Amino acid sequence: MSKLTDVSKRILIGSALRSDRLTETLLPKRIALPVFASDPLSSVAYAPGEVLMVLSIAGFSAYHYGPWITLAIVVLMFTVVASYRQNVHAYPSGGGDYEVVTVNLGPRAGRTVASALLVDYVLTVAVSVTAGVDNLSSAVPFVAENKVGVALAIIALLTMMNLRGVRESGTIFAIPTYVFVAGVLIMIAWGAFRWFVLDDTMRAPSADYQVLAEQSDLAGFALLFLLLRAFSSGCAALTGVEAISNGVPAFRRPKSRNAATTLALMGGLAVTMFCGIIALALATNVKMSETPARDILIDGVPAGPDYHQDPVIAQVSAAVFGDGSPPFLLLAAATALVLFLAANTAYNGFPVLGSILAQDRLMPRQLHTRGDRLAFSNGIVLLAVAAGALVYAYDADSTRLIQLYIVGVFVSFTFSQVGMVRHWNRRLADEADPAARRRMMRSRAINAFGAFFTGLVLVVVLVTKFGHGAWVALLGMAFFYALMTGIRRHYDQVAEELALAEDEGRDEMTRPSRVHSIVLVSKIHKPTLRAIAYAKLVRSDVLEALSVNVDPEETRALRAEWNRRGIDVPLKTLDSPYREVTRPVVEYVKSLRRSSPRDVISVYIPEYVVGRWYEQLLHNQSALRLKGRLLFTPGVMVTSVPYQLESSERARLRARRRAEWSAPGAVRRGPVGSTDRHEP
Amino acid sequence: MSKLTDVSKRILIGSALRSDRLTETLLPKRIALPVFASDPLSSVAYAPGEVLMVLSIAGFSAYHYGPWITLAIVVLMFTVVASYRQNVHAYPSGGGDYEVVTVNLGPRAGRTVASALLVDYVLTVAVSVTAGVDNLSSAVPFVAENKVGVALAIIALLTMMNLRGVRESGTIFAIPTYVFVAGVLIMIAWGAFRWFVLDDTMRAPSADYQVLAEQSDLAGFALLFLLLRAFSSGCAALTGVEAISNGVPAFRRPKSRNAATTLALMGGLAVTMFCGIIALALATNVKMSETPARDILIDGVPAGPDYHQDPVIAQVSAAVFGDGSPPFLLLAAATALVLFLAANTAYNGFPVLGSILAQDRLMPRQLHTRGDRLAFSNGIVLLAVAAGALVYAYDADSTRLIQLYIVGVFVSFTFSQVGMVRHWNRRLADEADPAARRRMMRSRAINAFGAFFTGLVLVVVLVTKFGHGAWVALLGMAFFYALMTGIRRHYDQVAEELALAEDEGRDEMTRPSRVHSIVLVSKIHKPTLRAIAYAKLVRSDVLEALSVNVDPEETRALRAEWNRRGIDVPLKTLDSPYREVTRPVVEYVKSLRRSSPRDVISVYIPEYVVGRWYEQLLHNQSALRLKGRLLFTPGVMVTSVPYQLESSERARLRARRRAEWSAPGAVRRGPVGSTDRHEP
Repeated sequence: MSKLTDVSKRILIGSALRSDRLTETLLPKRIALPVFASDPLSSVAYAPGEVLMVLSIAGFSAYHYGPWITLAIVVLMFTVVASYRQNVHAYPSGGGDYEVVTVNLGPRAGRTVASALLVDYVLTVAVSVTAGVDNLSSAVPFVAENKVGVALAIIALLTMMNLRGVRESGTIFAIPTYVFVAGVLIMIAWGAFRWFVLDDTMRAPSADYQVLAEQSDLAGFALLFLLLRAFSSGCAALTGVEAISNGVPAFRRPKSRNAATTLALMGGLAVTMFCGIIALALATNVKMSETPARDILIDGVPAGPDYHQDPVIAQVSAAVFGDGSPPFLLLAAATALVLFLAANTAYNGFPVLGSILAQDRLMPRQLHTRGDRLAFSNGIVLLAVAAGALVYAYDADSTRLIQLYIVGVFVSFTFSQVGMVRHWNRRLADEADPAARRRMMRSRAINAFGAFFTGLVLVVVLVTKFGHGAWVALLGMAFFYALMTGIRRHYDQVAEELALAEDEGRDEMTRPSRVHSIVLVSKIHKPTLRAIAYAKLVRSDVLEALSVNVDPEETRALRAEWNRRGIDVPLKTLDSPYREVTRPVVEYVKSLRRSSPRDVISVYIPEYVVGRWYEQLLHNQSALRLKGRLLFTPGVMVTSVPYQLESSERARLRARRRAEWSAPGAVRRGPVGSTDRHEP
Repeated sequence: MSKLTDVSKRILIGSALRSDRLTETLLPKRIALPVFASDPLSSVAYAPGEVLMVLSIAGFSAYHYGPWITLAIVVLMFTVVASYRQNVHAYPSGGGDYEVVTVNLGPRAGRTVASALLVDYVLTVAVSVTAGVDNLSSAVPFVAENKVGVALAIIALLTMMNLRGVRESGTIFAIPTYVFVAGVLIMIAWGAFRWFVLDDTMRAPSADYQVLAEQSDLAGFALLFLLLRAFSSGCAALTGVEAISNGVPAFRRPKSRNAATTLALMGGLAVTMFCGIIALALATNVKMSETPARDILIDGVPAGPDYHQDPVIAQVSAAVFGDGSPPFLLLAAATALVLFLAANTAYNGFPVLGSILAQDRLMPRQLHTRGDRLAFSNGIVLLAVAAGALVYAYDADSTRLIQLYIVGVFVSFTFSQVGMVRHWNRRLADEADPAARRRMMRSRAINAFGAFFTGLVLVVVLVTKFGHGAWVALLGMAFFYALMTGIRRHYDQVAEELALAEDEGRDEMTRPSRVHSIVLVSKIHKPTLRAIAYAKLVRSDVLEALSVNVDPEETRALRAEWNRRGIDVPLKTLDSPYREVTRPVVEYVKSLRRSSPRDVISVYIPEYVVGRWYEQLLHNQSALRLKGRLLFTPGVMVTSVPYQLESSERARLRARRRAEWSAPGAVRRGPVGSTDRHEP
């Protein structure tokens, strides 16, 4: 039966699981773009609004700074994309920022970046989901009224999907991402056409409202600070750009070139979309405020708490396509969907990063094993709980969550670019060929500018955002940093304790002399006889059966049956006045060790294997406890001799199903061994 | 160091833990009475009030039926006590009602009684704690305002005490119980003295209020029904009477006689206290109502939701001693304390009954082991959660909870007495001596009357209480019954599957031919070498080391080190394209089994033993998972070769502390083997 299933499965799925066939699953650029770019592209759905909101503090008149801020963000975007194209070429292994920084700046810097990335993953989920809910809200009033609930439900849904291990497919990403990109581009084109050619007046839903300036007549330093804050907020558009640099191994060959091209494509699209949306927002007179209830005036009266401020992309879409029109609804749906996909990328990235950190012993080692479902599950649940807590604490308010978001992104940008400068310095020291040296110096210049610019932005972000929530992100980073340091220290201590002297090996350090084997017996039945048979087969110097006398009558009966059946192993019984099982056995073992310290005690425990967890509760509990205690006793080995009951078949099948589970993020990691971890 | 601690401990505690010395810890009657009787005696704190509340439905005039109902309860109490004196003589093993019923009426009836007893334990906690809180309320206004919270806090406190395993001492029970009994008796005497001799008018706090009759002018069947309901409610005074019959082994010799005497003493005290309190309540004009907010009128106006109705015992005490006077406060405190002790008895009784049921394979077998902390803990937590849920659901309203209580008590009374009648019939069939026959016939007559009377009360309780909450108790009983039936069926099935044929034994059913040993290796360090050394010592036919190749470079390094160190066991590596560890090993083992099905595969897993649970998370996870999978593979045995790291010392000490934990209820179970389970 089980054989048959195996065969039919092979036929159905094909034996494509072998790593040498995995090339077929590598991603072409047209699929890689949506797989990796849903996160950076989707951020144009919220970044423009963030810029306008901050400007609103100085009143609507400040919106005329919008184009300048946009320009700064575009320059930054080009810088970051150009910088990461260097990363992709230099580090094709997909280690991303963490690898670049660890290799070039050392483990502490690496840990700092890893903390920043872990925090970022949490915030990617929180921000993308709430922004997606915001966009749904513009089309569905029910969502607008239950934002927190809907956001938490979507996090729960993503969590379940990832726990179940839905196999990722590039197509799932491709369709909504392309619909979203096409929708935004068409919107921009159609808006430009109406504006320049038809000379239409397009009015956003909020065009007729006024914005109350919190601080009017800003000038000098105060104005500069406000503009810097607006710029910082707009930098949300850059989140997720580094994703491609983590995903190089998943690209088709030539991997690095394809990845670099995709990165450029992504940067071009993001810039176009961002600029287009800002331009349309200004053209259609969108009004945004961080505190719309108070500072948006409708006919001179504050809008009040019932006012729902739609995201800029939704307002622009309403102005261009018409509110509630089919293209408006389609774009709103695609925007929400692409934002949820962006959140999903964090579910994949978190365990992937965890696996890399585990390899460097900064996270529990089992995370390193691919497809270790338990480890992945823990990571996924941790991510979901943290993101859910943030969404709940921040009332699903994407604007407030974004304040936390950008710090981590720019920490990793800056460290990564500094690391790249170091990388080129090292390479230049060894390189003689002038053409190669020229290329490297060009790359170094790009990375140096990137390091300078992103570092500057990091400072700006820290200064302008610290009080607005960035401290929460820093606290999260500190937590992860401390956790990783602690785990690494523990592993190092253990490794030191376990390490062998140079000459150990053939002469093993512990040279035990004899084996004293003990088979634990509670009843005489098949598992007991099997354990005795196995113990006899594995030859030892002494072999005895051991039973604990918790009930004199039962023990008498046991001994009688033992003799009657003629079992040729001596049966010893231990008294237990308190009906304990564990203690008498442990003390007997210890007394044996005391009398001959160089002997090894081998304890055989017959175990039943049952299929259901509640059946498991009914069996083996004392065996388990005894094993746990014996493990602390030196010079003992504990052997489980399982006896499979009929119901265990059920559990075997379940275990196999589990083993066949596919880890989230598989598609973006590429196959194992398709590239080496460090460049040669 | 550890030796020294052992020795100093022996000196301090004495080696009195041996069962043959345990006689010293047997209970004299003066301690046994409070240990076992806190539950039945404490019920006089709430039972009188319940009678008056039901009578109030027909108005204050119905209170004149009070003495008649009291008389009926007194007769019932004498009947039950007399009946249980027979049980104590006939079944000195402490199995109590469950044993009596199972032996005489069969396993189904036994399971029914066991379900009733388990439900009763839950309700003992819920009712006693809420009644104790009621009594505290009469003295402390804060408690009156936060009854649910205080009741839950007390349940939590009792739970923690029992989980920690505070060693029971008879004295802890003796003091509050004797203070309570003395206080009530003095109150009765002083009240009688004031009434008869001084001719004082004593007025309860509620003496001047009126009771609004819900149904006035009741007559005929309706009146009878009301009186029966009042009687049923008063039967709450009988709860806990059977406790002594469970505790016979804890008495000094002659056990049965001493237990019977204590039972009679307890019955006499309970009856005196009950009658005295009812008499004083009627004399001091106490007014009680099930719905005091509506039906208690103060100056003709309903008392309203803020009115706090004190228990009868508190009102009487206020009338006799003066409200707020020192004796009043002392009695209130003693009453509350004795009620909490009564709740504590359930914490002891629950695991004791569980252990007996486990012996009969109706509960998980590990409950049978005395001092199995984990099993006891689960039982205690289950009890606390169930009682806490009831307290919360019923708003800490003792009156409503008592409706659930009495069903289970009378189910076990009735079954037990019917069982005793059967018992005497069996004995009479074998007995020839006329004197013995006469004694037996007398006992049988007592038990028969007991069975008839308690059965009648059971019917009355079911009829009058069903709609008031008794159905909840029946539902609980059905749940436990189904659970026990399921567990028993599972154990029976397993036993059947494991049973040996008559001639099996010397020729073990499985006759494996050779042993193929595999040592799992991930790194070369001390634990690995130890595992190899042990595996070599235990001789097998083939011995090889096995490593899973999750990283080609690491594997190459491993093999190089293997050769360099000259380890004389062949090293085999398995490819793992997905970085899995479990699956390649399991498949390799399976392939070995396929090629030589009669071989046994012995898998040695080196394990580190660390001290802290979070350290455990960082190690051995793949070993654990692998073990789990291998247990389902036939023909495999799995050996853990532990390597104790320094930090494991901490866990060893913790484990020993745990092993020295003393199970709750030890004092009332008496020592093991001090009496045989079944009479000879």
